[in-house]
Amino acid sequence: MTTAIKAMLDTHPAGLGGVDREKLARCIEECLACAQTCTACADACLSEEMVARLARCIRTDMDCTDICRTTAAVLSRRTAYDADVTRALLRACAAACRACADECAAHAATHDHCRICAEVCRRCELVCEDLLTSLG
Amino acid sequence: MTTAIKAMLDTHPAGLGGVDREKLARCIEECLACAQTCTACADACLSEEMVARLARCIRTDMDCTDICRTTAAVLSRRTAYDADVTRALLRACAAACRACADECAAHAATHDHCRICAEVCRRCELVCEDLLTSLG
Amino acid sequence: MTTAIKAMLDTHPAGLGGVDREKLARCIEECLACAQTCTACADACLSEEMVARLARCIRTDMDCTDICRTTAAVLSRRTAYDADVTRALLRACAAACRACADECAAHAATHDHCRICAEVCRRCELVCEDLLTSLG
Amino acid sequence: MTTAIKAMLDTHPAGLGGVDREKLARCIEECLACAQTCTACADACLSEEMVARLARCIRTDMDCTDICRTTAAVLSRRTAYDADVTRALLRACAAACRACADECAAHAATHDHCRICAEVCRRCELVCEDLLTSLG
Repeated sequence: MTTAIKAMLDTHPAGLGGVDREKLARCIEECLACAQTCTACADACLSEEMVARLARCIRTDMDCTDICRTTAAVLSRRTAYDADVTRALLRACAAACRACADECAAHAATHDHCRICAEVCRRCELVCEDLLTSLG
Repeated sequence: MTTAIKAMLDTHPAGLGGVDREKLARCIEECLACAQTCTACADACLSEEMVARLARCIRTDMDCTDICRTTAAVLSRRTAYDADVTRALLRACAAACRACADECAAHAATHDHCRICAEVCRRCELVCEDLLTSLG
Repeated sequence: MTTAIKAMLDTHPAGLGGVDREKLARCIEECLACAQTCTACADACLSEEMVARLARCIRTDMDCTDICRTTAAVLSRRTAYDADVTRALLRACAAACRACADECAAHAATHDHCRICAEVCRRCELVCEDLLTSLG
Repeated sequence: MTTAIKAMLDTHPAGLGGVDREKLARCIEECLACAQTCTACADACLSEEMVARLARCIRTDMDCTDICRTTAAVLSRRTAYDADVTRALLRACAAACRACADECAAHAATHDHCRICAEVCRRCELVCEDLLTSLG
């Protein structure tokens, strides 16, 4: 999907306003992957027999889905770029990914979907922080 | 809609974790109203003859819709409350509402939909900041 | 919220393209209320001790939230109205509300949040079907 | 991203309820790619000088984003699979992709982002119809 994301960034008439193209495309992609994986993990948890022990996991998955989805959309828009909104949202996204990575990691040994989800969330957290740092 | 939001908060088995019920319900409602108004304002701008001068307005409307929608959903969840994620998201939401209120206010004299949208965004910004302060 | 929805419809430069203003505003409002209530019901179910018996309920709540949210947004846009997309989406929304109303109704005696959610979903289903009929 | 989507489907305790794994994973991926591309195309259109002639394009892009995002999420959930809701939503998604592909195709010679978006929407339309047929 990175190719498609970069193709759309490259054809945007407004340009990237000084934002690093590689880091931006990477962050959009990781946010989309994280939203998708968290949706799937929440639903997989729901089908586990021990679902009662996974309530916190499902909740953080749902928050992470909503926030990553929104972050990917806001980052994809380059018209009238607003650094304040972007930075505040990236901070919220990194916080949601961190919470979800921590929670899913606690179930990684028992559930493969939580193990995969923990990895994807951790990667997304780091990529959000990396983009944030590069924005200055 | 406030009645419905409070009814759902009151029937939640987890309780509100010390969060102020009135401020929380108010914030959820304003976020939903703001998301709806921004969706409608973006589309109304699109149908204006002078749409080229409203590009920034449409963009901030779209961001504000996405962020307010997500904030309303995260605030509505009370299972395993996470203060860090909530606070970071409320800050992003207040920033998006501020940007959108400022931009729509600049077109308030020309377009009634921007005038209404500026008011709704400003109110949502203040309510998010009020809830943020009360969370400590 | 109906007042705010109607105010935005009335200030839209494109007009309503022959769609009934009362039914349209009503449908947007019920979809927003239903999305909100389903988000809250899914999360309340998650905090119930008997959550394992509520897995189907949580899943239909999550679908209903996503579909109602999308339907409210699409209906709020009046630029370049597309009757085919609108009708197909209203049918999907009525189907999701019906499934969620049926499932929540089965838990209405045990959980107040499911009882309220069943009522809101049923109302939204009927309002979607009513708007669909009026579109011809 | 297909690998990640399949990995999550494969670790889901509920199984796929007889739905074709390849077609399902493909459809989730195309819906996510289409939502992303439409978000980017709407915003790129907004930055074009001739934005007034792209109003219909931006509107169909926004609808297509919302509907594809929702379809990807609903398809990713396998707990308590509901064929009626799935089918109705796939029909709405195919209709939205068709409308957006047709509209973007009309601007493909002038704007590269519309050309790419038309291709992605057409592919998503076909993949939704293919999954729909396989569901019977």
